[in-house]
Amino acid sequence: MPQGAVYCFAALARMIILLTDFGLEGPYMGQMKAVLYRKAPGIPIVDLFADLPAFNPRVAAYLLPAYINEFPEGSVFLCVVDPGVGSTRRPVVIYADERWFVGPDNGLFNIVCKRAHELHRWVITSKPREISASFHGRDLFAPVAARLALGEDVSGKLLDSSKNPWTSWPDDLFEVIYFDHYGNAMTGVRACQLERNHRLVIKKQVISFARTFSAARPLEPFWYENSNGLVEVALREGDVSKVLSLKIGDRLKVLKQDT
Amino acid sequence: MPQGAVYCFAALARMIILLTDFGLEGPYMGQMKAVLYRKAPGIPIVDLFADLPAFNPRVAAYLLPAYINEFPEGSVFLCVVDPGVGSTRRPVVIYADERWFVGPDNGLFNIVCKRAHELHRWVITSKPREISASFHGRDLFAPVAARLALGEDVSGKLLDSSKNPWTSWPDDLFEVIYFDHYGNAMTGVRACQLERNHRLVIKKQVISFARTFSAARPLEPFWYENSNGLVEVALREGDVSKVLSLKIGDRLKVLKQDT
Amino acid sequence: MPQGAVYCFAALARMIILLTDFGLEGPYMGQMKAVLYRKAPGIPIVDLFADLPAFNPRVAAYLLPAYINEFPEGSVFLCVVDPGVGSTRRPVVIYADERWFVGPDNGLFNIVCKRAHELHRWVITSKPREISASFHGRDLFAPVAARLALGEDVSGKLLDSSKNPWTSWPDDLFEVIYFDHYGNAMTGVRACQLERNHRLVIKKQVISFARTFSAARPLEPFWYENSNGLVEVALREGDVSKVLSLKIGDRLKVLKQDT
Repeated sequence: MPQGAVYCFAALARMIILLTDFGLEGPYMGQMKAVLYRKAPGIPIVDLFADLPAFNPRVAAYLLPAYINEFPEGSVFLCVVDPGVGSTRRPVVIYADERWFVGPDNGLFNIVCKRAHELHRWVITSKPREISASFHGRDLFAPVAARLALGEDVSGKLLDSSKNPWTSWPDDLFEVIYFDHYGNAMTGVRACQLERNHRLVIKKQVISFARTFSAARPLEPFWYENSNGLVEVALREGDVSKVLSLKIGDRLKVLKQDT
Repeated sequence: MPQGAVYCFAALARMIILLTDFGLEGPYMGQMKAVLYRKAPGIPIVDLFADLPAFNPRVAAYLLPAYINEFPEGSVFLCVVDPGVGSTRRPVVIYADERWFVGPDNGLFNIVCKRAHELHRWVITSKPREISASFHGRDLFAPVAARLALGEDVSGKLLDSSKNPWTSWPDDLFEVIYFDHYGNAMTGVRACQLERNHRLVIKKQVISFARTFSAARPLEPFWYENSNGLVEVALREGDVSKVLSLKIGDRLKVLKQDT
Repeated sequence: MPQGAVYCFAALARMIILLTDFGLEGPYMGQMKAVLYRKAPGIPIVDLFADLPAFNPRVAAYLLPAYINEFPEGSVFLCVVDPGVGSTRRPVVIYADERWFVGPDNGLFNIVCKRAHELHRWVITSKPREISASFHGRDLFAPVAARLALGEDVSGKLLDSSKNPWTSWPDDLFEVIYFDHYGNAMTGVRACQLERNHRLVIKKQVISFARTFSAARPLEPFWYENSNGLVEVALREGDVSKVLSLKIGDRLKVLKQDT
């Protein structure tokens, strides 16, 4: 009984966090969660993103590290942006700075790996008895995430740490990587990389910094440090993605302040 | 052990209900829920609205009281429509008729307060160690909601009950305040304020009452008492918001029946 | 105490799965889940579909059986596509091959019934104390689903097994029945009914089989067996629903291969 209690407590300290491009619509998130509820009962599951830009692991790679640290150590991030599902791309488990990541080895974890202090990577070698050709999120990744969340072993082959596919990737991505519900445009740039007097250029529009929405001028696009540390282009009580006709991948330039 | 059991039982009787304009897309609801799972483990969390009209606490104020009573006493409503986040608007906790409310003091709770029989209001004075400028839902309001749900104290300063910002607000709002998935238009009017033979005018269209969708005529907009007691403008198996080009804030008039 | 543990274990083995046309937006899914959390605490709830085609139980009938088997025996499917709510359509409970179904008797369960080996059907005769005219999902079906998930009795009247409304329904529906987030078009046809060399015609476009997305040619619509066994029309990294202007109910023809 004390063991049970201890186990329960440990389990509650863990969490499985879902990041996918599956969409809010449709059955896919629910199907993955059903697997998790069965295989890791009692572990809280957080839908963080179901609307990552579709088929685009490159931009998701820059979003992901901004959303890691607020989750407790031991958290398991189940990440699926997987246009190559059913091809030869490898399924991986990554341990980076006390947190676990499960998903396809297609660049999605490159920036998490690049910024990690402690890093271990494995190719998943366990094979589920039944696996569909198109939904490894449900059939392979979710069961592995459940095992990790429970502290159970997963069969894997350690990847050679001298070959790191991310070495050629930039530290920050000066592009639009995500739009939120309000139309705000998150970028792949950490705000700590910029000075507050830096102005940015996007779609030929020059924009300045504001600390908060209420500090910004109406009708005037601005940039600010969002609540997860990314440079975000926004408009006070308006939709900047429409006003500037922004799309994923649009480039951002820094206009250094005259001094 | 009996204490543990008692605690669990009490916890299950409570619930945290989320109402925001954060959108279904994106990380914000998930980030708030992750805080709640950690700080109030075992408490059920209900996503009630993630799609309240953006930046519009005034219409949300009339939606909120219609959705309170079906939740058990002791429930905590975590409500965030917060265009002034980062400005001087105050964070509040409200106790109204056995239920708790947490959110910004920008009018969002005015109608809940106006209709309450027992009412207490506090400005939240506790300060989280880390607080972002733009996401008080995660950094301030969610931790407070978790404490309330657990029956723990929150530091606050009681507000003067003689100064009530809602005294000038009408009892009912004769406007469209929300569209659901089908395009039905909820209004800020309680159906108990109207007679069934009252006809309404919206966008120059005169509409009559029908008890249910199946009682309404196809292609003919009607009004009915929705399942939460509000006057709702609808169309049988159709989208009245498109057919009448409705938008949030469109006005409703009552055409009193000749007798 | 051991009894408590046993009860918990049994409860965890069960699940309530929600399939509706209520939309992701708005309060309806949350309101149903609040009822389930209260009446069946601890039972996992899975949002499988909130976006079934609106007012269309006929197409949902062909989607539903494809999504049953991955859920454990004893699962309760709470299914609400209910354009006739408030009319005389009957509320039913169905037991089919170790799983439970609750919802309106409007054809939604016809294909589940048609394919079942063991089948029992009841009209629900219990009446909730308070029931709205338009939201039986919350007021009637959710409480019944909670009781079934807990293994409790529900008052019902067994339906005559000799009168089966589905006898005239086809085994498979050669129509588009659902679009997912990517714009892929699920059909009411089980892939096991076709040969891999069968070509299909939809909107005058002839399409061939591909095993996976990565095996398909870019820009060329194809069909494949989706991860739930249905024939799905898709496009590699594109939106086939837009490219072919598809809509729910569009017909599919099989062009048998010359041999």
